[in-house]
Amino acid sequence: MMAVLDGGAANPPPIWLMRQAGRYLPEYRAIRSKVPSFLDLCLDPDLATEVTLQPIRRFGFDAAIVFSDILMTPFALGRSVRFVEGEGPRLDPIDEPGIAGLAVDRVETALAPLFATVSKVRESLDPDKALIGFCGAPWTVATYMVAGRGTPDQAPARTLAARKTASFQRLIDRLVDASVTSLIGQLHAGADAVQIFDSWAGILNERDFGRWSIGPTVEIVRRVREAVPGARIIGFPKGAGLRLERYARETGVDAVGLDWTVPLDYARERLQPHVAVQGNLDPIVLLAGGDGLDRAIDGLIEGLAGGRFIFNLGHGILPETPIAHVERLVGRVHGTS
Amino acid sequence: MMAVLDGGAANPPPIWLMRQAGRYLPEYRAIRSKVPSFLDLCLDPDLATEVTLQPIRRFGFDAAIVFSDILMTPFALGRSVRFVEGEGPRLDPIDEPGIAGLAVDRVETALAPLFATVSKVRESLDPDKALIGFCGAPWTVATYMVAGRGTPDQAPARTLAARKTASFQRLIDRLVDASVTSLIGQLHAGADAVQIFDSWAGILNERDFGRWSIGPTVEIVRRVREAVPGARIIGFPKGAGLRLERYARETGVDAVGLDWTVPLDYARERLQPHVAVQGNLDPIVLLAGGDGLDRAIDGLIEGLAGGRFIFNLGHGILPETPIAHVERLVGRVHGTS
Repeated sequence: MMAVLDGGAANPPPIWLMRQAGRYLPEYRAIRSKVPSFLDLCLDPDLATEVTLQPIRRFGFDAAIVFSDILMTPFALGRSVRFVEGEGPRLDPIDEPGIAGLAVDRVETALAPLFATVSKVRESLDPDKALIGFCGAPWTVATYMVAGRGTPDQAPARTLAARKTASFQRLIDRLVDASVTSLIGQLHAGADAVQIFDSWAGILNERDFGRWSIGPTVEIVRRVREAVPGARIIGFPKGAGLRLERYARETGVDAVGLDWTVPLDYARERLQPHVAVQGNLDPIVLLAGGDGLDRAIDGLIEGLAGGRFIFNLGHGILPETPIAHVERLVGRVHGTS
Repeated sequence: MMAVLDGGAANPPPIWLMRQAGRYLPEYRAIRSKVPSFLDLCLDPDLATEVTLQPIRRFGFDAAIVFSDILMTPFALGRSVRFVEGEGPRLDPIDEPGIAGLAVDRVETALAPLFATVSKVRESLDPDKALIGFCGAPWTVATYMVAGRGTPDQAPARTLAARKTASFQRLIDRLVDASVTSLIGQLHAGADAVQIFDSWAGILNERDFGRWSIGPTVEIVRRVREAVPGARIIGFPKGAGLRLERYARETGVDAVGLDWTVPLDYARERLQPHVAVQGNLDPIVLLAGGDGLDRAIDGLIEGLAGGRFIFNLGHGILPETPIAHVERLVGRVHGTS
């Protein structure tokens, strides 16, 4: 994994899956049932360490990703964050006075449980496995903070950004500060690399993509590397499509995550010359299994493993995914089946 | 409008807006309040004609689009379709026996009110204004039929397509048949052009994009032109991003609709050589108004009006959009303000 982030190719490619610690695993569900809420699990270093390691033990993935959530950033900024079973996250929608009142001085303390989890995982994890820390990108986190929940088109945040641009910029600036603190803390605690999840980058128009996705990412990358020279950073601007090359060239990340809609020839010709690429098996194809899964795996390896490539899904693994399909995937990528 | 679809450029460019007949207009809301449901409005040729013409009278758009809905296709196939106020459409989710039982012989009769509306609008509309008919693309309509409602990721249809491919192919085939009947009927009734809305094309992986978006569109275009030689057809594969060039080259459409995320240099360099382009002002920018709106309008005209270009939004107009912003937009595009 780290060899690819450091600039080399690897064959077979390293593999991990977004949301690999999650509800499709019975051992995860057993731990989850011990705590009242998802947030409690994120904030308990012992339990979070355990669920982080579960998929490594079971499947032998090449990287672990610390069990946490992109909404730990607003939580650390003092905002109320609840996870409603079956409905997703709920926050108190932030307004202009709320933005003006955001204080970043409490972020490092609030994230202490996350940093503790990273340390504990790194202690237990084989040295040849990478540990990935992460945060949500400022734009994506802002969409939840403004709307108070997930939205299909992120209209509340986009409208605020268009109508009250100075206030929205202030929100983004505070989220950049908090993200930098979070990523530096995770790297200092033992993360080998960090990933910035910009799950809603794709919704932005061209001008706003530069302003709200690329700009803050550039700033985070610069400040993290200032504190942690040579820090390896993966960016995942989901849905960025035609703007992926710009993102790869301008942000300074070492690797770009690709959702499942990105054609492999584009990734090979336009992205791999600049960065490593990570992705992009369709989670539905993994869910469905069968010959279609084998063909998709082989197609990805044939298309991308000649260059810098980390095998992953194009989005998080679906909770209904059969474990046998994940075993089949890992075996086929590692060349052991 | 028709000059651009016929292969020429026009300066100033023609302009119309997706959902230009809709809730942002008080005169629309007045008509809507006279009928119990949205579907009743679609099925009443007198009222549908009136709301189709309202935005032409008020703003002087260069094209009218018949008031209807993409879910008229499952309705015409005999499926139950309800529109729940504030919640969106509801259908009885279709299963394999339901797919096997779909009969296309009733489609033409069921769509008679739509064809009547087209005829009535064409009679009242100035000859220099174009009338656009439309249907939903088979893939997009199928996502609603399988899930029974709008879904954030179209997982139900994608899962059915991956697991029960033959059944899903049968559903798509029947939707192609019904779409062809609908578009031919609208063209015979007086539509000058037709648009195929593939609102969820963007979610598909590369292989499925070819199979479920491009393939059915190719078939519709071929069969419509067989019945109506020279029929002008606009395709709108929303979110297609990196696959837009392929769509423009392979489907045979005369124009491609662009959502607001498509960079203008890509549209100019990779799409306009093959097709006319239509779009792609961000609806949020129109909603917000001000200098940002003026700059975006000017940028679009500067970027695209040198080639084949129809000014539009990148998605439907938002219900909260101030009418003054639409007046400002039309005046600026037409060069009268």
